[in-house]
Amino acid sequence: MNSPSPGHPRGVFSAALTPLDADLNPDHGRFVAHCHRLLAEGCDGIAMLGTTGEANSFGLDERRALLEAALAGGVRPDQLLPGTGVAALTDTVALTKHALAQGVTTVVMLPPFYYKGVTEDGLFASYAEVVERVADSRLRVVLYHIPQMSAVPISLPLIARLRARYPGVFTGIKDSAGDFANMQALVREFPGLSVLAGADPLMLPLLREGGAGCITATSNLVAAELACVFRHFADPARAAEVDAAQARIVAARNQASRFAQMASLKVMLGAKLNDPAWHRLRPPLVPLSPEETTALLAN
Amino acid sequence: MNSPSPGHPRGVFSAALTPLDADLNPDHGRFVAHCHRLLAEGCDGIAMLGTTGEANSFGLDERRALLEAALAGGVRPDQLLPGTGVAALTDTVALTKHALAQGVTTVVMLPPFYYKGVTEDGLFASYAEVVERVADSRLRVVLYHIPQMSAVPISLPLIARLRARYPGVFTGIKDSAGDFANMQALVREFPGLSVLAGADPLMLPLLREGGAGCITATSNLVAAELACVFRHFADPARAAEVDAAQARIVAARNQASRFAQMASLKVMLGAKLNDPAWHRLRPPLVPLSPEETTALLAN
Repeated sequence: MNSPSPGHPRGVFSAALTPLDADLNPDHGRFVAHCHRLLAEGCDGIAMLGTTGEANSFGLDERRALLEAALAGGVRPDQLLPGTGVAALTDTVALTKHALAQGVTTVVMLPPFYYKGVTEDGLFASYAEVVERVADSRLRVVLYHIPQMSAVPISLPLIARLRARYPGVFTGIKDSAGDFANMQALVREFPGLSVLAGADPLMLPLLREGGAGCITATSNLVAAELACVFRHFADPARAAEVDAAQARIVAARNQASRFAQMASLKVMLGAKLNDPAWHRLRPPLVPLSPEETTALLAN
Repeated sequence: MNSPSPGHPRGVFSAALTPLDADLNPDHGRFVAHCHRLLAEGCDGIAMLGTTGEANSFGLDERRALLEAALAGGVRPDQLLPGTGVAALTDTVALTKHALAQGVTTVVMLPPFYYKGVTEDGLFASYAEVVERVADSRLRVVLYHIPQMSAVPISLPLIARLRARYPGVFTGIKDSAGDFANMQALVREFPGLSVLAGADPLMLPLLREGGAGCITATSNLVAAELACVFRHFADPARAAEVDAAQARIVAARNQASRFAQMASLKVMLGAKLNDPAWHRLRPPLVPLSPEETTALLAN
């Protein structure tokens, strides 16, 4: 069985939603409060500025400012795993350098996602250029495999090449493709690599295979349940508690999947916090219709 | 038959390749020289920083600097149609404002291309937010339909909504999907809209339907031939000349399509100019292998 190496990301990381103000700009105050709430509920860290966090709808300046706000708000650098991978090589380098300058050393990095059908050589060259240009031995990268959104998959041969060329840098992968067989292959092929489930219900079976935890969206709503599963899944004495938590995770995930996922998560969180300001999304994502909102919450 | 309205883009616009220096950064000197060469060969303008120009591999600062270099190098603002659409709303706004500040008023705008399966409402909201935030009555937008790369198509109903809401702003569309029936529908449905072919061989048939010209990649090699077809396609006395030019356009396009297109175009241009510095591409795109290069040029 695999077991993530010391210093590698391990635990429940929330793919945190990003609250917006009335002008559709990131709401720093609500975001920082949300981070602290997630940590208090049991998250090991905040994978901010990912797909769920609408990162790719925010400009470089907005991304940097949100990371700085989280740190200024008292979230520790080692609790943050910001997404820094964008389409343009030099912007990915700039965001990654910025994170490191703030003391944040582990980042989640999408492949460049504009060009489709790119070669393994091209993706290797892209990640290699980022590592070389960032030129900081503290850098730790969690690769981000989400082909249904990026349309650029991260293959096992690519991971093998990157880990061979840059030992100690590519420490993890967030696998959001939803294909459990691929997660099993990652655990089997790469001893020491942190394999993190990108879908909440799959964290439990992945942990049983030697996975390292999760970076997931439903954690915005069920962080305590995910923390329970993560901590106690191997303890037969707590099987009933783990099963109940897993059932709540699956139910929340199913509820959030009836309509558009990010919009649904924001409505569900707004309801939980009694704060409808959470309903806002930045285009091209849009809020649920009133009818969908009613149907979702009547669930 | 359609006929583009006065002031709308009309003619042969080159989706200009971007030369790189040894550090894989845009080579301003070679780029400016290339722009002037394309204009001298008969292009009506330069659609710089598009897919062919590897725009989405360049950071915001690099894009702004390249546009400024073209202008400083003597290319007129009305000859430039830079791409300014990126994944993040605020970055698209920033690039578009920058172009306008330089006196460049017509831009080519991709839809936000990270999120997939977004709604027509979401895309409408995205373009509407850009227009509202740019807030400049000089702005003219050429929509960019290239679903095989963006994975976010621009539908006819979306175009209708945008043109109704912002009369005079959405003046054109570059249709790179390769589906001639869609180009015909665009010409038919939107009188006055400049419909520009995104594939070189389709400009001639599109002109016969009332299209406005092209924004194409092979123009980097056959600008004179495209200019000939554009100017004389309706003149029976020059049919033989037009047919010969069209045959050379088709041949160049076919040659560039045997291997990866952008890499092939750069090799072919490098050969034409006897300047192998043109062979470089920025990751995730990579140059042709030596074997591919030899096979391509032996064609």
